[in-house]
Parts: sequence; C-alpha cells; structure tokens
Amino acid sequence: MPENSLPENGYVHGYSARESERLADQAQTLTELLHHDTHYPAGSRVLEAGCGIGAQTVILAKNSPGARITSIDISEDSLARAQEKVRQDGITNVTFRQADIFHLPFGPESFDHIFICFVLEHLADPQRALGQLRPLLKEGGTITVIEGDHGSTFFHPENKDANRAIDCLVELQRRGGGNALIGRQLFPLVTGAGFKEVHVSPRMVYVDSSRPALVEGFTKLTFTAMVDGIGPEVEEQGLMSRVAWERGIAALYRTAESDGVFCYTFFKATARK
Amino acid sequence: MPENSLPENGYVHGYSARESERLADQAQTLTELLHHDTHYPAGSRVLEAGCGIGAQTVILAKNSPGARITSIDISEDSLARAQEKVRQDGITNVTFRQADIFHLPFGPESFDHIFICFVLEHLADPQRALGQLRPLLKEGGTITVIEGDHGSTFFHPENKDANRAIDCLVELQRRGGGNALIGRQLFPLVTGAGFKEVHVSPRMVYVDSSRPALVEGFTKLTFTAMVDGIGPEVEEQGLMSRVAWERGIAALYRTAESDGVFCYTFFKATARK
Repeated sequence: MPENSLPENGYVHGYSARESERLADQAQTLTELLHHDTHYPAGSRVLEAGCGIGAQTVILAKNSPGARITSIDISEDSLARAQEKVRQDGITNVTFRQADIFHLPFGPESFDHIFICFVLEHLADPQRALGQLRPLLKEGGTITVIEGDHGSTFFHPENKDANRAIDCLVELQRRGGGNALIGRQLFPLVTGAGFKEVHVSPRMVYVDSSRPALVEGFTKLTFTAMVDGIGPEVEEQGLMSRVAWERGIAALYRTAESDGVFCYTFFKATARK
Repeated sequence: MPENSLPENGYVHGYSARESERLADQAQTLTELLHHDTHYPAGSRVLEAGCGIGAQTVILAKNSPGARITSIDISEDSLARAQEKVRQDGITNVTFRQADIFHLPFGPESFDHIFICFVLEHLADPQRALGQLRPLLKEGGTITVIEGDHGSTFFHPENKDANRAIDCLVELQRRGGGNALIGRQLFPLVTGAGFKEVHVSPRMVYVDSSRPALVEGFTKLTFTAMVDGIGPEVEEQGLMSRVAWERGIAALYRTAESDGVFCYTFFKATARK
C-alpha cells in the first residue's frame, strides 16, 4: 500500500455501525451550512475524491441533479454502502469506482470540477494529493475542499479535561498520519498545490439551547460521540486516565445543557485551475 | 468606587495614544462584520452603555442617523475624546453623559434600544449589569451586545508561545476582574438577565493573505498589537519569560505572512425585553 494512501487501519474514526450513524447525523445537520453554495451545472463532469460511505455524495448529487458525478474511494466496503445509499435515494447521476487518490485511473482534464470533503485530514501529504488532482481538471475548472478543525473547538462551561480529550483526538489522528487541525491550513495547502483564485470561508457551527437540533445533531451526536468513540484507544495508548477521560466526556455533554454553548469551525475552500 | 464599576486602573487595555490608534484601526476593519445589521429607526431612543473613546459611537450614529443616541461612559477623559470624534465627523444625534453603568441616571423605560459593545468583558458581574439595564428599556425594546473571545483565537502556523501569550492576556484580564472569554457566554448571560428572544451570532474574522486589509488591520494592528501591548505587565507579574514572550509575539506576526492564517471570533447577541 503506498505510503500516502488512505489505509483503513489508519482511519481514526473507524468503520463501525455507530460511526456510520454518526456520519449520517452529521451530514444531515450540516448540509445547509457546508453545501448550500455548491451547485454544478447540468452536463458538467464532477469528481468526488474520497466519498466514504456516501454521506456527502447524496447531498452533492441532489444539489446538482444534472451533473455527472464520479465518486471514488479506496474502500470497497465504503463504496458498497455509498452505492446502496444513493440507490435508496433514487439518485442516478453518480458513478462509483474503487481507486486510490494518489493513483487515479483518469486522464488529464477529465473533469470540470473536483469536490473533496473530510479526506485531506487523513492524508500524510495533503498538498501532494491536491497537486495530483489538479491535472485531472480542465483549465478554468474548480476544486472545492471542505475540512474540519478540531482545534477550533471551544465551549461553555470551560473544562480542562474536555480540552485534553479533544487533544487526544488530535494526537491519535496525528499518530495515524493525519491532521485534525487541517481546516485552518486550506489556504496555504490549496495555494501551494498550484491553484489560483483561492477563497476560503469559515463555517462555524454555533450551538446554544435556542438551537435544539444542533444541540442534539452536532454537540451530542456528532462531536461528543466522535470524541467518546476513541475512549478505548486513548486508554490503550495511555494518553489520559479513564477517570479524567470520563470527566472530559461528561463536560462535553454538559455544554449541551440549557446554559451551555458549543462552537466548532469547518473551512471550505474553492479555487480554480 | 462601587465594586462592579469600570475602574480605569483595572482596564487591561489602558488608555495610551497607541491604544487609541489600535481601537480606531479595529473599529474601521470590523465595522462591516459587527455592525452591518444594526439600524435603529428614526426617532427611537438608544442608550449606548459604555462608549469609551467613541469608536463604536460614530458607527452607531452613522448607521442610524435618525435615532437619538445617548452614550455614557464612566471615564470623563474617554467621553471628551468620544465627543471630539463625533464633532469631527459632523455627527449631531449623540448626547454624551458621564455615568456608572451600575448607577445610571435614567428612569424606567427611558429607551427603545440599548447597545453595549466591548464593555461586559471588563465587568466582574456582567449579568448584573445586563439586569440593571433591562428596566431602562421599554417593553418590547431590544438590547444588542457585542463581545470578543480571546479563547476563540487559532492560527497557522501553530505556536505554543503564542498560545501562552494569549493566555497571559486572558489571565491579566481575569486578575483585573474581567473575562476575556465572555463572547461564548453571551447566550446564558443575556438569557439569565431576563431578556427573551435571545439570538446569538458568531462573527469570525478569518484572515489569510488574500485579505491584506485584514492582515494589516486585524492580525497585526488589532490583535497582535493588543497582545504586544501587555508585554511589560506580563514581565512584571512574572507570567512568562521575556524570551518566550518575544517568541510568542514573533509567532503571532508570523501568521501574517503569505502562508499564514489567523482566526478570531466576536459574538453578537440581540434580545428583547
């Protein structure tokens, strides 16, 4: 397996059923925030590089019903689930293909647009990935990149164990060859890969108790569930004591109460070849 | 001086000429982001609680030229400068008055709207301040609160000394009886003071080198200049060594280079009596 590919065993979020649910919840809650301004023209050819289980694929396809979308992923298992999801939603403008993002089976200028979401965070050399995608675009074509940034997280009430728990997530992803703080780096990464007209916009998920759908869908079911999910690995690797860990997780859930506040920022970059 | 008033000697940013310039730069760069959605109807009576040297007053007055604005501050010196600024800009709809926010010389229901910006961060009991402002509003009147949150800061490249320098700013403000992390708490504070229909929106200042006005006006002249300004006090109180401090400040300026990124979030709350 090439050094910079997306190995299943290095994928910090894993592929469990609970994880799939989490991704589905996340996709639903965040759709508007992240995707409302991505629409591809009818007839345009779009590459989704790294579709996973299709959480973003269905949104992409629905927002651009006339576009011809090719979605690739390295995991056959994920692809099968993405395909099933797309079929259930009656979507017909997506073709799936198993492929390594560093060895894509497409000729130069095969696509009008490229879309890559929650993928670069898992790669050891994300700028090289962007650089390898670039030739696949027609001149003047666009790339859209979306990533989170776990270091953007802050909340009320503050809690040191909760901060440490999030640091553990960042550290585990780093040990797996990824970067959980990549969102803030999209501008230099996309610029450094040779794209022009790079525009980055932050998308903050701000949650207080006046927004109950986000309290459930984001603070609890997306973010805290994600952190909670790495508990066994954190203990195994001795990053935090179980007691401190449990205090941290409890403190994250505490931010979902009526006087709590939770903030997390995604970043969306668009650029042109 | 009452315990919870705004003592000049506890005001962490000080009142130097350089500080005045910094506030002016900040006001200019952030005007659109923070104030574009605040417009009061002609004839309405507006209280600006804590106007300082008038940085926000001129924006407020220009955005609502028909409103009758009363701007109070505890500092006679600041008021004199605010008055001069307003005069220079040819603004005629502002009346200034020296007053303590905890002992305001106005009767119940004197105002249609209250505006309070970058003030609560300096108070030991911000919720009590909001609670004392509330009776001054007519039924159905609105309050608008704007605050920053230094703990929302993150940047690229990352740097531990820079993070520590920011922590020093937070700590000094805490020692002065204030709270530099108050932005994230606006929802519980405004709700807790008895207001209804509380709506909080985050306003992130996202800066990369494609936005040179923000690189200069925010990253360098506003944020880093503010941190840099507390250097002598940090050394005096032994919070960081001079060497580490200087590394931290250099690292903050480093984020203003072509591959750097800087993020800071203000919060704006609106609510109704």
